[in-house]
Amino acid sequence: MKIPPDLISFFKKEKEFLIATHINPEPDAIGSALALSAALESMGKKTVLYDRDGVPEFYRFLPGYKKFKNSISSPNMLRLPLVLLDCNTPKRAGIERLNFKYSAVIDHHETESTFGDIRWIEPRAAATGIMIFYLIKKLGVKLTEEIAVNLYAAVAIDTGTFRYSNTTAEVFNIAAQLVKAGANPAVISQNLYETWSEQRFLLLCMALGTLEKSDSVAVIHVTKEMFDKTRAKPDDTENFVSFPRMMKDVKISAFFREENDNNWKISLRSKGDINVATIAKLFKGGGHKNAAGFEIKGRLKDVKKELLQAISQHTNIQKEK
Amino acid sequence: MKIPPDLISFFKKEKEFLIATHINPEPDAIGSALALSAALESMGKKTVLYDRDGVPEFYRFLPGYKKFKNSISSPNMLRLPLVLLDCNTPKRAGIERLNFKYSAVIDHHETESTFGDIRWIEPRAAATGIMIFYLIKKLGVKLTEEIAVNLYAAVAIDTGTFRYSNTTAEVFNIAAQLVKAGANPAVISQNLYETWSEQRFLLLCMALGTLEKSDSVAVIHVTKEMFDKTRAKPDDTENFVSFPRMMKDVKISAFFREENDNNWKISLRSKGDINVATIAKLFKGGGHKNAAGFEIKGRLKDVKKELLQAISQHTNIQKEK
Repeated sequence: MKIPPDLISFFKKEKEFLIATHINPEPDAIGSALALSAALESMGKKTVLYDRDGVPEFYRFLPGYKKFKNSISSPNMLRLPLVLLDCNTPKRAGIERLNFKYSAVIDHHETESTFGDIRWIEPRAAATGIMIFYLIKKLGVKLTEEIAVNLYAAVAIDTGTFRYSNTTAEVFNIAAQLVKAGANPAVISQNLYETWSEQRFLLLCMALGTLEKSDSVAVIHVTKEMFDKTRAKPDDTENFVSFPRMMKDVKISAFFREENDNNWKISLRSKGDINVATIAKLFKGGGHKNAAGFEIKGRLKDVKKELLQAISQHTNIQKEK
Repeated sequence: MKIPPDLISFFKKEKEFLIATHINPEPDAIGSALALSAALESMGKKTVLYDRDGVPEFYRFLPGYKKFKNSISSPNMLRLPLVLLDCNTPKRAGIERLNFKYSAVIDHHETESTFGDIRWIEPRAAATGIMIFYLIKKLGVKLTEEIAVNLYAAVAIDTGTFRYSNTTAEVFNIAAQLVKAGANPAVISQNLYETWSEQRFLLLCMALGTLEKSDSVAVIHVTKEMFDKTRAKPDDTENFVSFPRMMKDVKISAFFREENDNNWKISLRSKGDINVATIAKLFKGGGHKNAAGFEIKGRLKDVKKELLQAISQHTNIQKEK
């Protein structure tokens, strides 16, 4: 992995940085930012961390999470050079209205944007955390436990704890080094996967109870009434869409969440070569090949039907059987 | 990890082996046996593989699984030296009535048994697959793709794909080597976790719907009627007990499965220091600290109550709150 020499000089020369990451942040965003911040601070630099949405409660086990601010209030912050992490446009970080004098972008997502004075984009990296791992080594900073825990969580979440196709020998070698430096796989996994509230679990049980299968497409949903009954929150539905994937013959899993009366937010997941981003785009949504989403208005029955029709027209899911 | 020199000489000297593993086998048993068999065959040896229960359908993606026999019919098989894998007593392999002229035991489970002419027991190894990895290296055999896939599956299952506390830097280093040798983490994970039948998934949904929580104890159950309704099989309930663990405040998860009218098979899982083997022993069952089980007769309501009483008397789960 080749780090742009400009980027190294930038981190060595500047004394203070504004590190910002994407809205609705997850551990690759948060952990990468916290690890980079800790590394820069150990070099005597100052950092300010920003995320528009703050750190969700689930992820407050990450050491240093309190550093994150969710507002850019002081004009001084705007004078700092910007480091955009795990995203590559100011819009994705919710800071499109601000002007920065200088900016660096570090991201592993494919992009057509050209934002940034220095850009380091590595779509082949399993996580931004992997890029930060190499960057920190290159800067000559020792892997502390704080850095290791944050990077381990970043890599764990983006590889589905070593289950997705981006899990390479390199990823395992880096995980080994992070464990040696103090990351505890069991404690981090417990924090990532076993901290559900009872409300969230009850909502999952209800959602799974709504399963409808049509050929290789599984659909589940959560209505406002179900939120009311369980007293769970919209955030609690994170990852619900993945459960029907357990079934061998499910190739696409769709999750419908009621936002307001007849307003639905839909998450799609697919296996292998089936592209759900194409489907989401038909409904003015977006995403990646295997994970995408969109919003739609209508009666649940009708919008489900619309989605199933789009899937049968725009994928070869029928022919695959 | 120190391999007994006698064991190395044994594998070098003998020409044919009967490799047997435990009843109700899972990928650490099956994968370790298949990897050892492939390694010995590449040295020009012959192997016969035995498991009383055969290879469950779920695990028939493991290369070479057809080698397994589920009967010891020919008297010739009894003349072979026995290699007992991932268990340490003939009883655990269902072969306690047979006599073998010579036997070697390779296992990572704690034991008080002394069975075996050569014994290699490593309770600190995360999986028997880790021990076989070192053994194969010591025997000078190249890691083929067949060996790597089998050992990767063994390690993956016994570490909960790198989520349990036995996941060390060493485990990650070995995983990296197995991936380099041809193991595909995504394909193996998909085979391990995403091959549920629709019947099994529907039964899970029903089981989760029975959730009862009493302080930090979660209880779910499956009745014969639920099996009938979903047309799922008893084997399909494997791992159901783990789902309630997702809840942060659940310290013990119990799963009741109806075998015959009012005959229940109970699986227990605990987090951290809570010992469910102690509880299982009170009901004449057994197991490990965090995973145990027992059988009981009675009305569901009564047996649930008995279990909850035993838990409150024999663990400090109430005081922990």
